[in-house]
Amino acid sequence: MTQTSVTRHYFDWAATALPWDNLLIQDVYGNPSSHHAEGRRAKEALEDARSRCAMILGVQTETLYFTSGATESNTLVLHSFLKRKGKGKLLYSAVEHPSIRENCLVLGHLNLPIASIAVEKDGRVSPEILYRTLEKNPDTRFAAIMMVNNETGALMEMGVLSALIRQKQGGPSVHLHSDLVQAVGKLPLDIKGWDLDSASISAHKLGGPGGIGLLYLRKPLDVLSVGKQERGIRAGTENILGALALAKVLEERASGDSVKKESQKSEERMSFLIESLKTMKRCRLIPEDREERDRRFSSWILQARFAGIPGEVMLRALDSEGFAVSTGSACASSSQERPVLAAMGLDESAQLEGIRISQGWTTSMEDMKALLRGIEKVLANY
Amino acid sequence: MTQTSVTRHYFDWAATALPWDNLLIQDVYGNPSSHHAEGRRAKEALEDARSRCAMILGVQTETLYFTSGATESNTLVLHSFLKRKGKGKLLYSAVEHPSIRENCLVLGHLNLPIASIAVEKDGRVSPEILYRTLEKNPDTRFAAIMMVNNETGALMEMGVLSALIRQKQGGPSVHLHSDLVQAVGKLPLDIKGWDLDSASISAHKLGGPGGIGLLYLRKPLDVLSVGKQERGIRAGTENILGALALAKVLEERASGDSVKKESQKSEERMSFLIESLKTMKRCRLIPEDREERDRRFSSWILQARFAGIPGEVMLRALDSEGFAVSTGSACASSSQERPVLAAMGLDESAQLEGIRISQGWTTSMEDMKALLRGIEKVLANY
Repeated sequence: MTQTSVTRHYFDWAATALPWDNLLIQDVYGNPSSHHAEGRRAKEALEDARSRCAMILGVQTETLYFTSGATESNTLVLHSFLKRKGKGKLLYSAVEHPSIRENCLVLGHLNLPIASIAVEKDGRVSPEILYRTLEKNPDTRFAAIMMVNNETGALMEMGVLSALIRQKQGGPSVHLHSDLVQAVGKLPLDIKGWDLDSASISAHKLGGPGGIGLLYLRKPLDVLSVGKQERGIRAGTENILGALALAKVLEERASGDSVKKESQKSEERMSFLIESLKTMKRCRLIPEDREERDRRFSSWILQARFAGIPGEVMLRALDSEGFAVSTGSACASSSQERPVLAAMGLDESAQLEGIRISQGWTTSMEDMKALLRGIEKVLANY
Repeated sequence: MTQTSVTRHYFDWAATALPWDNLLIQDVYGNPSSHHAEGRRAKEALEDARSRCAMILGVQTETLYFTSGATESNTLVLHSFLKRKGKGKLLYSAVEHPSIRENCLVLGHLNLPIASIAVEKDGRVSPEILYRTLEKNPDTRFAAIMMVNNETGALMEMGVLSALIRQKQGGPSVHLHSDLVQAVGKLPLDIKGWDLDSASISAHKLGGPGGIGLLYLRKPLDVLSVGKQERGIRAGTENILGALALAKVLEERASGDSVKKESQKSEERMSFLIESLKTMKRCRLIPEDREERDRRFSSWILQARFAGIPGEVMLRALDSEGFAVSTGSACASSSQERPVLAAMGLDESAQLEGIRISQGWTTSMEDMKALLRGIEKVLANY
């Protein structure tokens, strides 16, 4: 334990949120699969949590399955293809989270046909690119397109992309999966309207505990592992405490009112940050043409670089000043690679300069001002 | 919520333990994969939890991987065979937990060669049976043998069985996996002495929270899913609160001293129960020749049946009297099948009469006496 005397400013909400203070949950004992009073009570608590999550997410209760987190939710969907009959291409956007991208590569090694969907220079899957990718792969039966990229904040137009996928002529119908981890609680969601087949959510990005998440499935899936719990979709004794905590943070932070209010405040803070960074000579936003209130990006995440300073060096320098920022995804298997920035066309030296600044519900304008002073101080020394 | 006026006696510890009262853990925020102070502190907490678990289990710290529970631990090992090169038989005892047995059947459907190891009438894998199974399957490369059966308490002689497996002549070397869920905290473990290649543990069976468990791996495994966390074995942001809670319940309940003391007390209560049940005309123990202080069984679990009363009926009748018992495993995908009892040679009507009585650390002799009175009362009405 070091640096206890430095005031900390947390700008790594995209890795994990600061815990929500009011998360006092009474654990419920008993195994929900047991047929006695304790089991029934546990089951009731679990189903209460599920229906509260469904209410906030605007979906049917029976479409939600509790998992240990979004990585597992993503994996459950991907691994189902090891069991499903039929061939056909599995597509994933080039900027997907490692739990999608790297696991798709595993499926490729196991001889399932895979292909990536390229992104524009702004890191987004454009309708044009998706259209061409589908035309080139008429046998597509699966596509994973995240809603908000975890490194750049690039925002995908899910409604438009989904409509394109639904209009595909010939070949199998496409299972459309979306990793909503960086979107839930931060931007309005329309899971039903976007006609998603599946989607993933993690509680810890909302200030809930680790080890709990959701998988949305429009229709039940023939998953790789069999088991009784979660109606056959996810085996293992349920994490009821986690499920109740997830319901509570969703109610607090993902209701329509909260999202509207908090995303406006987030936008104001991000606009100020972007405006200020643009005045710094050595700073380049990623992509360079990102604007204040840019509709192409989530206001909760910013990727930037400082000419001549490797991202890891910047991270450590800011850390010693009390600021928590990050470089690539905390989940990537190699910290030396920046596949998301590579997909956007950045050269290797620019990739390695990238740092991610992500904010959350308790971030203040004062935090932003302090961060800017911190960056100025670091820049003066390098 | 009903029956609040009835005193409850919990006899379903094998499904899930009553929560340990003293489990006040301070959650640690930050993502252990992040490189700033918050991330490092989270990583330190996680590694502290891991080394404390290793100390109690008598293994090297780096052989332990946190998972969401034993079902996931078991599945991680089984699914690795979808990726591993080479053929060779995968064996599983006929009385394995559904997370092993049912997932082995899935592997069989995916064209991996599988075979079950039969059990004796007492529900145990005997050295003789194992020897014959290995002789019949010289290409065996994997064997799953649980230490304590979750339905009958049948105790496998892991040291003897392991030695037999290590003596196998020719063919591939065998990966020996043991589900220790019903053994940890209840019986002395010797993971290293038994020469296990992998083993599984769940926190909630010890009074810890749901959603956290351990996988022991003597050597790293090429698992199906890739990811950075847990040194590549288990992807997904870590559940630090769960890991700390698991360390704490292991320290409390799985130390050598605690196991010795508690298993003696458990044995006394079980002996009294068995002795008393034997005086009831309609009661049959499963197996019928189970004795007081029978070394073939764990004293924490008893399977019995009452002639002419289906197990489900007995369960519900006892439940309304305030007693929580169970029939089959809470995790089986069908409650109408009792594969463990079938493997022991019981006919179908006897199988369906079976109920499981499982005790735990806070079970008292008074609970046992109350249960016997409860059973007498039910028997008088049927």
